[in-house]
Amino acid sequence: MSNFISEYHRLDSQTRFLLEIDKLKQIIRQTYLPGTEKKENSAEHSWHLAVMAMVLQEHSDENVNLLRVLKMLLIHDIVEIDAGDTYCYDPQANSDKSQREILAADRIFGLLPDEQGSELRELWDEFEARLTPESKFAAALDCLMPVLHNYHTQGRSWKEHGITRSQVMARVAKIEKASAPLWKLVCSVIDEAVAREFLSA
Amino acid sequence: MSNFISEYHRLDSQTRFLLEIDKLKQIIRQTYLPGTEKKENSAEHSWHLAVMAMVLQEHSDENVNLLRVLKMLLIHDIVEIDAGDTYCYDPQANSDKSQREILAADRIFGLLPDEQGSELRELWDEFEARLTPESKFAAALDCLMPVLHNYHTQGRSWKEHGITRSQVMARVAKIEKASAPLWKLVCSVIDEAVAREFLSA
Repeated sequence: MSNFISEYHRLDSQTRFLLEIDKLKQIIRQTYLPGTEKKENSAEHSWHLAVMAMVLQEHSDENVNLLRVLKMLLIHDIVEIDAGDTYCYDPQANSDKSQREILAADRIFGLLPDEQGSELRELWDEFEARLTPESKFAAALDCLMPVLHNYHTQGRSWKEHGITRSQVMARVAKIEKASAPLWKLVCSVIDEAVAREFLSA
Repeated sequence: MSNFISEYHRLDSQTRFLLEIDKLKQIIRQTYLPGTEKKENSAEHSWHLAVMAMVLQEHSDENVNLLRVLKMLLIHDIVEIDAGDTYCYDPQANSDKSQREILAADRIFGLLPDEQGSELRELWDEFEARLTPESKFAAALDCLMPVLHNYHTQGRSWKEHGITRSQVMARVAKIEKASAPLWKLVCSVIDEAVAREFLSA
């Protein structure tokens, strides 16, 4: 009987968490989706990065545990439900980003049964710290995709915000620490974006 | 040098595939998202199911390899880019669903380097066949979430399509084959939906 009650409580907490994170589908990023007038939301972005990890794993400089990378990417933006999406080129919004996101992580991962909430929180902390091969590779994908999206929308979001090449280069620097082939790719896409005037020199 | 060329070609194919699947964010399902006027798209749906698998894995009746479940859920709807989302309660659309989706799988997974395209195609075939513990569990989650979404939108999509309890029960039957606790949960949610008139008896 106590097993039944405990199972019921676990499932109830888990279901509340899963309904709460539905809100990530309403968090809108600055990225435009190619061929549309639509900006990307953080849930579909997280899906895209996870498939990207499946497909591009071989290009990581260090061996990575794919399951850990996937888990990390699937939950890396959940804190935005409370903290909002912080545009990476907005220094003011970034000044208190970490504080806002820590409060969000406490609340949202706290909806889960204790040990499960702790596991997801540790994955999020690991992603934020970018010290392990898995978190470095995950962060590289998170930087690479917006460059591809911008390139394939003629730099629409870069232009709207007056972003320059040096800002993008500073942002994507972490790709160099994770993957030589992806670093080569992103540099050539940025060069081409400048040449085609999608991005200011 | 040939290694460099081969790496370049692989990365080029992989990038094309990753840009192609961006279109899944435009494929709209019949599910309304709680608290919004928005219908769900298949990319954010895939993300939600993947997090669901991370959180609910313990409720699978059989042991499952979580990495395999996640990979399957992340790619299970990609064929909809060509085949469209087929509403599960539309018998006419379902009559040629399989044919349309096989053509889509050929084209889309075919964008990848051969062995990688084959791996994803096998995962998709496995998901569709529902014979392994992983595919049974993944399919159960794919049935459960729309019931939760419908319940938490007062049965909005069920009502729009005049869906009845027996149709929903037939649809969710595969949950019983995968998870006793999730089967208990879905039955109680459906009972409550009928009692609150979110769903016709």
